[in-house]
Amino acid sequence: MKLLIKNGRIITADQDYVADILVENEIVSQIATSIDTDADETIDASGKYVFPGFIDPHVHIYLPFMGTYAKDTYDSGSRAALVGGTTTLIEMCCPARNEDPIEAYELWKSKAEGLSACDFSFHMGVTIFDETTPDKLKQIVDDGITSFKVFLAYKGAFGVTDEELFHTCKLASELGVVVTAHCENADLVSQRQAELIAEGKLGPEYHEPSRPVTVEASGVHHFCTFLEMTGASGYIVHTSCRDAVEAAMPFRDRGVDVTLETVIPYLVLDNTYAELPNFEGAKYVMSPPIRDKTHQAFLWNAIASGTISTVATDHAPFDFAGQKEMGRPPESNFTKIPNGIPSVEHRATLLYTAGVSTGRLSLRRFVELVSTNAAKQFGMFPQKGTIQLGAHADLVIWDPSYRGTISASSHVMDTDYDGFEGFEITGRPEVVTCRGQVSVRDGKFVGSLGHGKLVQRSTKAE
Amino acid sequence: MKLLIKNGRIITADQDYVADILVENEIVSQIATSIDTDADETIDASGKYVFPGFIDPHVHIYLPFMGTYAKDTYDSGSRAALVGGTTTLIEMCCPARNEDPIEAYELWKSKAEGLSACDFSFHMGVTIFDETTPDKLKQIVDDGITSFKVFLAYKGAFGVTDEELFHTCKLASELGVVVTAHCENADLVSQRQAELIAEGKLGPEYHEPSRPVTVEASGVHHFCTFLEMTGASGYIVHTSCRDAVEAAMPFRDRGVDVTLETVIPYLVLDNTYAELPNFEGAKYVMSPPIRDKTHQAFLWNAIASGTISTVATDHAPFDFAGQKEMGRPPESNFTKIPNGIPSVEHRATLLYTAGVSTGRLSLRRFVELVSTNAAKQFGMFPQKGTIQLGAHADLVIWDPSYRGTISASSHVMDTDYDGFEGFEITGRPEVVTCRGQVSVRDGKFVGSLGHGKLVQRSTKAE
Amino acid sequence: MKLLIKNGRIITADQDYVADILVENEIVSQIATSIDTDADETIDASGKYVFPGFIDPHVHIYLPFMGTYAKDTYDSGSRAALVGGTTTLIEMCCPARNEDPIEAYELWKSKAEGLSACDFSFHMGVTIFDETTPDKLKQIVDDGITSFKVFLAYKGAFGVTDEELFHTCKLASELGVVVTAHCENADLVSQRQAELIAEGKLGPEYHEPSRPVTVEASGVHHFCTFLEMTGASGYIVHTSCRDAVEAAMPFRDRGVDVTLETVIPYLVLDNTYAELPNFEGAKYVMSPPIRDKTHQAFLWNAIASGTISTVATDHAPFDFAGQKEMGRPPESNFTKIPNGIPSVEHRATLLYTAGVSTGRLSLRRFVELVSTNAAKQFGMFPQKGTIQLGAHADLVIWDPSYRGTISASSHVMDTDYDGFEGFEITGRPEVVTCRGQVSVRDGKFVGSLGHGKLVQRSTKAE
Amino acid sequence: MKLLIKNGRIITADQDYVADILVENEIVSQIATSIDTDADETIDASGKYVFPGFIDPHVHIYLPFMGTYAKDTYDSGSRAALVGGTTTLIEMCCPARNEDPIEAYELWKSKAEGLSACDFSFHMGVTIFDETTPDKLKQIVDDGITSFKVFLAYKGAFGVTDEELFHTCKLASELGVVVTAHCENADLVSQRQAELIAEGKLGPEYHEPSRPVTVEASGVHHFCTFLEMTGASGYIVHTSCRDAVEAAMPFRDRGVDVTLETVIPYLVLDNTYAELPNFEGAKYVMSPPIRDKTHQAFLWNAIASGTISTVATDHAPFDFAGQKEMGRPPESNFTKIPNGIPSVEHRATLLYTAGVSTGRLSLRRFVELVSTNAAKQFGMFPQKGTIQLGAHADLVIWDPSYRGTISASSHVMDTDYDGFEGFEITGRPEVVTCRGQVSVRDGKFVGSLGHGKLVQRSTKAE
Repeated sequence: MKLLIKNGRIITADQDYVADILVENEIVSQIATSIDTDADETIDASGKYVFPGFIDPHVHIYLPFMGTYAKDTYDSGSRAALVGGTTTLIEMCCPARNEDPIEAYELWKSKAEGLSACDFSFHMGVTIFDETTPDKLKQIVDDGITSFKVFLAYKGAFGVTDEELFHTCKLASELGVVVTAHCENADLVSQRQAELIAEGKLGPEYHEPSRPVTVEASGVHHFCTFLEMTGASGYIVHTSCRDAVEAAMPFRDRGVDVTLETVIPYLVLDNTYAELPNFEGAKYVMSPPIRDKTHQAFLWNAIASGTISTVATDHAPFDFAGQKEMGRPPESNFTKIPNGIPSVEHRATLLYTAGVSTGRLSLRRFVELVSTNAAKQFGMFPQKGTIQLGAHADLVIWDPSYRGTISASSHVMDTDYDGFEGFEITGRPEVVTCRGQVSVRDGKFVGSLGHGKLVQRSTKAE
Repeated sequence: MKLLIKNGRIITADQDYVADILVENEIVSQIATSIDTDADETIDASGKYVFPGFIDPHVHIYLPFMGTYAKDTYDSGSRAALVGGTTTLIEMCCPARNEDPIEAYELWKSKAEGLSACDFSFHMGVTIFDETTPDKLKQIVDDGITSFKVFLAYKGAFGVTDEELFHTCKLASELGVVVTAHCENADLVSQRQAELIAEGKLGPEYHEPSRPVTVEASGVHHFCTFLEMTGASGYIVHTSCRDAVEAAMPFRDRGVDVTLETVIPYLVLDNTYAELPNFEGAKYVMSPPIRDKTHQAFLWNAIASGTISTVATDHAPFDFAGQKEMGRPPESNFTKIPNGIPSVEHRATLLYTAGVSTGRLSLRRFVELVSTNAAKQFGMFPQKGTIQLGAHADLVIWDPSYRGTISASSHVMDTDYDGFEGFEITGRPEVVTCRGQVSVRDGKFVGSLGHGKLVQRSTKAE
Repeated sequence: MKLLIKNGRIITADQDYVADILVENEIVSQIATSIDTDADETIDASGKYVFPGFIDPHVHIYLPFMGTYAKDTYDSGSRAALVGGTTTLIEMCCPARNEDPIEAYELWKSKAEGLSACDFSFHMGVTIFDETTPDKLKQIVDDGITSFKVFLAYKGAFGVTDEELFHTCKLASELGVVVTAHCENADLVSQRQAELIAEGKLGPEYHEPSRPVTVEASGVHHFCTFLEMTGASGYIVHTSCRDAVEAAMPFRDRGVDVTLETVIPYLVLDNTYAELPNFEGAKYVMSPPIRDKTHQAFLWNAIASGTISTVATDHAPFDFAGQKEMGRPPESNFTKIPNGIPSVEHRATLLYTAGVSTGRLSLRRFVELVSTNAAKQFGMFPQKGTIQLGAHADLVIWDPSYRGTISASSHVMDTDYDGFEGFEITGRPEVVTCRGQVSVRDGKFVGSLGHGKLVQRSTKAE
Repeated sequence: MKLLIKNGRIITADQDYVADILVENEIVSQIATSIDTDADETIDASGKYVFPGFIDPHVHIYLPFMGTYAKDTYDSGSRAALVGGTTTLIEMCCPARNEDPIEAYELWKSKAEGLSACDFSFHMGVTIFDETTPDKLKQIVDDGITSFKVFLAYKGAFGVTDEELFHTCKLASELGVVVTAHCENADLVSQRQAELIAEGKLGPEYHEPSRPVTVEASGVHHFCTFLEMTGASGYIVHTSCRDAVEAAMPFRDRGVDVTLETVIPYLVLDNTYAELPNFEGAKYVMSPPIRDKTHQAFLWNAIASGTISTVATDHAPFDFAGQKEMGRPPESNFTKIPNGIPSVEHRATLLYTAGVSTGRLSLRRFVELVSTNAAKQFGMFPQKGTIQLGAHADLVIWDPSYRGTISASSHVMDTDYDGFEGFEITGRPEVVTCRGQVSVRDGKFVGSLGHGKLVQRSTKAE
């Protein structure tokens, strides 16, 4: 099976040129000014950009949460990802505190293997740490899962104690594994939630006040201190606000290896969405919450300057009907709304539309934010995250002239609403290949379920 | 009983003039250019300064700690305080987690009442918080104890959980009570201690590395977040370093009511003392630890500019023989050294010597740091902390021409060593009165044990 | 002449008690619980506060500016000050670059002497620095003028070059004189003004955009660097915004002696006033400009915490008719509007109303902000700024129960409008004495022009 | 002329793979796993790295300075650059204030054209700005010179006034040109120099104290304010210390486009070198000065994290004999020592040795710092700074196994000393090509003078 892509403008974090690309056996076998060969398929990419396949380093697919399950499976989830140009997902594997890590990992993996149309990996959630933990985690790391995930939020469910956090970071430091962290102080959130509910403040508009920026900044400061004390490499997921970013900066200045992620909802939505009437705000409940506009401007500067390295999604899809509604007052309240804004499908198009086409981001910086930096951070580079000889043929042929509108009526994700309903977009992935398989054509999924594989990721030590 | 003090230069935080002071019935009854009356005693203060009695807002007297007891009782402790010009002590009342707060408070109070030669109060340690706690604490507050103390360090002993911390701050906010806090992350300390000991690093010189500045800054950031979330007023005891102070500043900038204390050892000692050979370093083990010189310079700037409000002692006296030696390697290690540097006697003379006589501090700022600010912060003002009609006649007649040398052979404190042995001092309290009673004359204690009373302190709400 | 004030609650920065005050020969001669004497006048202050006379450390009276003169003379100006409780003014003496400093100083002084009803002093403007300057400035310092004023703004008019700034600071350091500074980068302002005018943006609402916060912060950073390089003590007048305050803080942290002032308009007005239609905005044009609300909140926190030491006015009174109108578009533009918001009369009442009566400031902090800190900073303490035996009998008997409304129709200042028109106020000076002379009674001026004297201020070296 | 490089490990900022590279007509014409062609020359790069040619964005070659001339011409300078792997130099063109910019530019260019063995460009020094300036600068920009250089230091020689700085930034903003800046406050330096000399402090060890970190931070803050006010893109050359970097960060956080450079001497030398006896310190006099060790650690963190983007040299070569000696006391003083530490030859080897081989920097980050980031910043990307089809064949074949020692006896630069004498190095450029011409072989220059061309750089607008 030979695939030839002709005349595309190849754009990576540090490349920009027009050439032909030949794909054989899942990898890029040739890049040349003009390739003349008998290919099984030839795609003309004239006038199009060719990007390395996008990587979303922060999604939830299999997610038992608040008594229900997130809507997408790897069927809908991987198809939506691919349509959005994302060829690799890193899913959070989040065992409960009483689950065995290896069993949990195998369970999570089983949901993807044989079903996913795109490649996948996991951040291994460390939700408890006892004497048996190191050996089990080492086994999982040996399977190519070279990052842990800890929650400072969700105490009792996924949250770890400070002692557990220390041991997790220490082990990560020894193994050369990255610790990713959800940084919000769990106790402060639960106390503030109780206060608001006691005051009769039940609607989704109280979600943000229940976990204000100071709670997130506190989590960041706390986590960075543990990184500093253990020498571990850290990655802070979904930073939503200026306060959180500023809490991390002094640590980085004195040499702590801490990397920041933000997610697409924070860049294009603000807290007025969560205040929409008729419980519509529930569609925009995620944690940390979407903040007010001033933070949005700060985040755009931070992704442009490199202070923040990656733009992910924290994709966690729940229906409005039946799921988000679990938290509808007056019988219920905002703490019962399943958290998440489905966005795995729209990340790149939204970032391109609001960032590249407005001049806020260069094309190369765009590639870094949606692909290259995640590949480097999580041990997939240069197999993924770039376009070079021998790399996986994960390619996005991007049509910059496309204009469209986002809608639940047309999206691939398996939710009954779309948080970006009516948003106009500029540009889209026209063709997407995943290890050489053409999985999207003309913006439609044409791949095959089960094509996706677990990515073998390396540690920092390798 | 009438006491007349003539011709002294009265110096308070905002006064500076020469006048006579008449004391009757424990209070200042008259201040005039020249008072001509039949006094029981007349003291000529010509050429001397008259300061308001000093207040040490952070001492330990009754202190079961690490299996032993601090050396001073209110006998030696209050005499030492008075000789040093301190007429009011605020002691930490630190119940164990399984002690009843009221019983603990009564126990602590019983150690002082009838014995102390100077006035006293307590910060009520909150070391557990359950449903019964609020009522009990209210009773204690009603007795004039308008501040709480929490430990982020010493987990399992005095330390509180985040949930308890929240409720403590919340209750304090409601009652108008100040929360004082020892800010070090307990888990990080215990983990780092274990690492050092495992590496065979046992001596007192490893005490500082076992709780580095980042651990203290982490505690400060954490505590300030809880203040912000609850609206409580906070007071951070014994800040030892730049990092800790800087962690608090952004909170103050956005309106969080947080006040900082440092203690005299940090201003005149540095970590080279803890590195003295032959286990001499053990004399200098306290927590947070004394830091390197760069932090000392920062702290001096901070007390001069007002960034830090008070200079206390954290007086916690243990003998070298038999007590500090409990941590002597190789059988034992630094974690077994009882923490504390006895200093209740020397605070003002050291600060005057190193601060006022060198030009780093004005006389008025000196008074604020050792007296007025503590009185204001802890509900004793204007009864104490200043010299005005009707105020307690707590007066220090200070001889700026005195020169002396500190030595365990001459100090009043009941310890077998003095951490400032051989330090030369400039100026000292020549006469000290406590509510009108001449308690120190010519630098010697002449007061009476049992004269001291529990101070009735007001809340912020009053 | 003996004046007896009975039963007032005396409140200073560190005092709070009820007593009688006897005034003789311009000074406080006796303070006692009950004074029984034949006084020439006895005032009952029961239920009233007795404050030390307020000090406004930043006013303009004689002010040739932009081709016209500020409206007040010492006749109206000192009467307005006294009615507002201000018993001492420090005026900016601002010679043009080609004026002789001594001649300028004598000219400025001649406008006050024999006319002012309240005491006065000057900040000596240093608007040029050549070989002859040091001797001349020393003469002026010897006359009790122990502070200089430099302008980083108003290049060509008052502004100094960097070389002149260095020499001014250096001289100040040697003489123990404080350098006060208007910190805005002159060139950036003039260039931005030109841009706006070129774009047809002529109205008063463009005054703020013509000198944004970054321009002020730049001036602050620049000035602080010069303080650090010369060891001089600095005082930054009228800081209007967070950015300016934050620019100074790191310098203070490392020991640079820099003190910050804000002025009352920034605390109670915001930039929407400058955007009022029909050229009404011109009434609110001053420099630095009044900023948006977020800065106001920051400034309130900063005066409450002590980050900012003094609240002055930068009183610079111009009529709306004929003066402010000089900048009316389309013939003219905002750069031609004489700068200033008359406020010498309202400073304390506005600060009390918006600060003390709302609980944002304690009474003692209020006294520090409007009186004590300025006295200490500028060498007038303890003669002024406090209430003690031997101090100047500058006293404000404050009626906290008074309620009133500010209006140009009733104010004493000589301007045809009042920037605070319609503002309701809580409390006011009922009686004001200036060195023992009752100058205000029942809120009305009853003093005598010419009573005021030049204050003999000391240097830092004295 | 066909050049074939076989089996090298190609490493760019976002690539890492083994392949063959074919070079034809000065450009990379083919990259493939195995290229089989009749090449004029074939180089085996097995076991070697192939990097894009390095770019030194900050050198001086033709430099009339302090009455003498820098030693290197484009003969020695370009040979030294190439031996060090640098295939493109950006030289500072620094006209005196009374020189015509176009004449100056032509003069500078004439020194390089026909002589340089490597490619070159210029930062056009703007040392005066009047009505005629814009047109002249536009002509120069049209010649591919898309960056300006301003000096806040060297007042009277190259320094610009604030008004000129504003217009320069404004014009740059309009043209899409980057403003590079030397940020030290000139007046503060000259005043401090005068003070030191007056105190008899004449030796090279007083160079650093004559321009302390606060002076550099002041310049950075000042320049960033001008960027913010004009919207220009800025690039701060040779940041030497923490204070300077921290001064720029808040501007970047709020969206100002400011990029930072450091230079190799700051990363491997410290101020003890300038304190060497016998006037040896003079060899280490450059501005800003080399600082103490604490700043060095900060800079390493900053280049690793991306806070600082580029590592240049500020190559400015003067002999010790006859040139550096011009400042020898007692007849002369440190202000007469020509500034500069020759280093164009050693930049990459020193950075590799101290950074990559110690694990502080990844290979990819190394490439960014010495090549890619400069190419992107200065409009040469993707022609230079990466390895891709169609790019200039500027290639460095790096031998990681090489070990050597730096010495003036063996270096190519035309100075009689080497500031890094005796430094051991790890790795070196074995072969270097400049637009396809093999210019270095086995570490020796084998290219041809005059081969170098002026690079056509694009503006931000292009």
